[in-house]
Order: sequence, then C-alpha cells, then structure tokens
Amino acid sequence: MTNTVQMLETYPAEIGLERQQLAKVIDTLTNCAQTCTACADACLSESADELPRLARCIRDNLDCADICTTTSSVLSRHTGYDARVTHAQVQAAIQATKTCGDSCQEHAEHHEHCRICAQACRETEQALNDLLPHVEPSGQAPRQPSQAAPQQG
Amino acid sequence: MTNTVQMLETYPAEIGLERQQLAKVIDTLTNCAQTCTACADACLSESADELPRLARCIRDNLDCADICTTTSSVLSRHTGYDARVTHAQVQAAIQATKTCGDSCQEHAEHHEHCRICAQACRETEQALNDLLPHVEPSGQAPRQPSQAAPQQG
Amino acid sequence: MTNTVQMLETYPAEIGLERQQLAKVIDTLTNCAQTCTACADACLSESADELPRLARCIRDNLDCADICTTTSSVLSRHTGYDARVTHAQVQAAIQATKTCGDSCQEHAEHHEHCRICAQACRETEQALNDLLPHVEPSGQAPRQPSQAAPQQG
Amino acid sequence: MTNTVQMLETYPAEIGLERQQLAKVIDTLTNCAQTCTACADACLSESADELPRLARCIRDNLDCADICTTTSSVLSRHTGYDARVTHAQVQAAIQATKTCGDSCQEHAEHHEHCRICAQACRETEQALNDLLPHVEPSGQAPRQPSQAAPQQG
Repeated sequence: MTNTVQMLETYPAEIGLERQQLAKVIDTLTNCAQTCTACADACLSESADELPRLARCIRDNLDCADICTTTSSVLSRHTGYDARVTHAQVQAAIQATKTCGDSCQEHAEHHEHCRICAQACRETEQALNDLLPHVEPSGQAPRQPSQAAPQQG
Repeated sequence: MTNTVQMLETYPAEIGLERQQLAKVIDTLTNCAQTCTACADACLSESADELPRLARCIRDNLDCADICTTTSSVLSRHTGYDARVTHAQVQAAIQATKTCGDSCQEHAEHHEHCRICAQACRETEQALNDLLPHVEPSGQAPRQPSQAAPQQG
Repeated sequence: MTNTVQMLETYPAEIGLERQQLAKVIDTLTNCAQTCTACADACLSESADELPRLARCIRDNLDCADICTTTSSVLSRHTGYDARVTHAQVQAAIQATKTCGDSCQEHAEHHEHCRICAQACRETEQALNDLLPHVEPSGQAPRQPSQAAPQQG
Repeated sequence: MTNTVQMLETYPAEIGLERQQLAKVIDTLTNCAQTCTACADACLSESADELPRLARCIRDNLDCADICTTTSSVLSRHTGYDARVTHAQVQAAIQATKTCGDSCQEHAEHHEHCRICAQACRETEQALNDLLPHVEPSGQAPRQPSQAAPQQG
C-alpha cells in the first residue's frame, strides 16, 4: 500500500486530473522503474553465454527506469501545472515502456525476470496511454503569471 | 502490489539477504520517495502565510526523495555486491528519513500531507534500521576479483 | 573540463551522432540540471515576501532538473540505440527547458539566480533543438533483434 | 564552464562552506556521474568475450552514477542545512567512488573508458575526502525550528 492517493487527497489546491487514475499511473510508474532496475541487474548476473544477447535489454531497462522515475515525479507535482511538460514527458515514458517491453518480451521465455518486466512495461504503457488525453495541452490557455501565488491564482 | 518480491525470486544468482525483508525495505523506500516529492509540492501550494515556514521542510523533502530513490536502486542490485557501499548508503537514508521525518512532524498538526509524510519517513527509518545489521561489511572479506563472471564466483 | 568527449571517443562501437555536438548537449544538460536544482533552493531561501510568487518557478526548476538529468543519461547510452526513445525524451527536455526558462525569466530582474538559470535553460533548449533533427526516427528501420550481441550486429 | 560558482554566489542566504571548494566538489560529482553512466554503457558494448568479466564493473558504475547525482543535488541545496544528512551522503559517495574506482582500475589496461572512469572516481573520492571535515556535524547544535523562515533564522 502506497500513500499516493492520500497525498493527492491532501494536496491543498486543485488538481485538474481524476485522482484515482492519477494515483494508479504514479504507482505503476514507480513499480515499473524498480522492476526495470532489478531486471537490468538480473540480466547482468546471467551466465556468460546469455549475457551478450541481453546487452540491449539492459540498456533499455536503464533508460526505462530513469524515464519512469522522472515521469512519476513530474506527475506527483501539481503546483503551477503546465500540461505541455506533462504531456511531452508522458509521451517519452510511453515510448520508453514500449521499447523496453519489446526488448524484455524477446527474452521472456528464457528469463522469468524479463517476462515479469515486459508485463510491467505493458501495464505502464497502457496506463500512460489512458492518461494521455487528459493531459493534452489546450494550446490556447497560457499559464497565469507566477507573480500571483498559486493559491490566489 | 509491486513486483519487488517476484524480481528478487527470479534473480539468477545468490542474494545474501532475506528476500521478504529486502523487498519490504525497497517498497518502503520507493513509497517514501514519492510521498516526499508530493509533500514538497503540497507545501509549495500552501498559502502565502504558511509557505515561508515550510521552506526547510521542502528542502528536507527534496533531499529525502533523492536519497530514498538512490538507496532503493542500490538495494535492487545484487551483482557484485559490496556491503560497504550498501551500508554507507543505507546509513545516509536513515539520516535523511530522520531529518525529514522531524521536519514534517513539526507541521503535522497543520498540514495533513506533512503528517502522512512524517509517518512514511518514520516507517522507512525503522525498516532501514532493521536492515542495517544485515548489510554490515565484514571488514575481512575483500570481494572476489571481477575477472570471474558473477555466476561463476 | 568534463570527460564527456573522451568517453564518446572510447566507446567501443559506432555512435550515429556527431560526437562533439553530442558531448556539448550532454554537458549543457548536466549544467542545466545543477543550475535548476540550485535555483529552486535559492528561491526557497528568498524572503517571506518574495517566496510565494516563486512557487511556480520552484516547481518548474524541479521538473527541469529531473528531466535534464534523465535526458543526459539517455544521451550518454549508445548500446542498442532506439531513436524513438531518444527523440521523445529530447522533446520532453525541450519543453521543460522552455517552460522553466520562461518562469525564471519572469524573475530575472529581481533575482540573479533566476537570470542565470533562465540563460542556462535557453542555451539547453537551443542545443536540444539543434540535436533534434539528428535523432529523428526513420520510421522504417526496426532495430535489429537483440539476440545478436551489439558488437556483432 | 558550469554555472556552479555563480549559483553559489547568488544564493541569497549564508552558506557555511567555502564556495570555490564546494563548487569544485559539485562539478566533480556531476562529471563522475556522467562518466560512470557512459562507462557502464561502453562496457555493455564490449565484445561477448569481454562482457561477462565486466558485469561487476557495470553494476558499480550504476551505483556510483546514482550516488554521485544524489550527492551533487544534496550539496547544491543550502536552505535549512543539516550537516548530518550531508555528512552521511558524502560518506556514501566516498565509498561508491572508491568501490567503482577499484573496479574500473582492474580493467584500465584493457579498456580506455575504464581507465578514464577510474581516474574520475579517484578525483571525486579525493575531493569528497577533502570536503568531509568541513561538513562534520557538531553534535551539539540542533537546527533552529523551521517555524522561523530561513532568512529570518
């Protein structure tokens, strides 16, 4: 059990997103990041026969872990929300989970850690795709000037 | 539900730590990091009257989030385990969660997000303290040379 | 002086990008990340009168620092290169540096740290925009299967 | 050229450390983090013959990159300074750069990227050791309550 929903519920200003969905995306991202970090390390400890063909998978795991962690942090902040940043970072995470999910899937039959990691990437990619339309920048509305404190904006 | 236990169970070499305990520490750290990131942002959106007295709490949240994320990653890697690195990073995380827990506790009565975050820090500090004796460097045993691939070590 | 160029020159396989340009982008990103981390903290220590109007700037600094750090790491990896991930993450960094540069620019006359940070964001945004056409995914060429080790690919 | 010195000089409150030395440590840490990220990836692209014996080196690179990035961020924040957190995190970075420097040194004759990375780790370890006495917690002085805004503390 994480605190993600509780932290969204106690945020003192408005959040323009549905909180249950947002919490699920954040939790999925942090789980995916940890799974990718662990999968990269599990690949590193495979036999000398196996390791060379896992090199690209390790690289994709490392990118995916970094990108999911950063995306989770961006989605955990709501002060002075700029949909353009959120949207672009969510798109990067969709691509990273797709690429890493594909890499891990290639090894899923031989390595159980890759099978679990591929599944985590697929779930995260799906959750991010479901969120994407809700973080679409309007294109018209510039953010209010930050000279106004956020709670008075 | 996270994949942490599953990833530990499918790691292809030995792990010198009890896997249920280790998984709990990793999950507690990733939850604490997300809670601290969210608490820093919630503080930023408090009223202009409140914000100045939350400055130190925000700083402690940011340090604690970074340190917990890094410590979770270090604990998620088992290849070529060096207890000295793990031990030192766990000690840093114990101090970061203690400092941040103290800061948030000061504001727990006024801000529910600080109350929840203080509790997450306390739980993480406790879980790390429970783990600490198990990652004690022996002092005598140097690591095996890395010329041996890990699975043959 | 950083090691970025040297590390690119000693990379044992091909890099499909011009190394001097790539090194400059990586160094610009790591500098921007550090500057944003420092600017967020400098804002936190401004007077109680000033702090509330800096809340959004702090948030943008935190996003920009995280996104620049991750983008620098993605650009520092070349094994199993997938242009689609690089391209998407570079686009996210372009937006993050634009948003943060705009926020800091609003405070550049009053706060020297915001003026320096706005400039770092502008330089990074420019360097990323110059890189963007070189990381364009071709759309046609799927990556080679990772069953081939990268050096034999 | 980085902005690290400029950002320290424009910080609006006191910093209890010598700014030139602190800037040097921060720059050394961010360079070491990038070098370790690049070295891990260069190792991943070595030949199938070489890769298995580099597994531990890759793992040490990944830990060292994460720990150096976090330590750089902690040292870039001065609001509500707590020497106990800084001291513990600097100690973790000393150990991580020592461990990673030792690992890379073992491969320095065969891999130029490991030679450069070992040198970056040694320089960072030295810079951190020079800083360590200056971030020693006094043991007696508790931090002032954060109810006082930092600039009024």
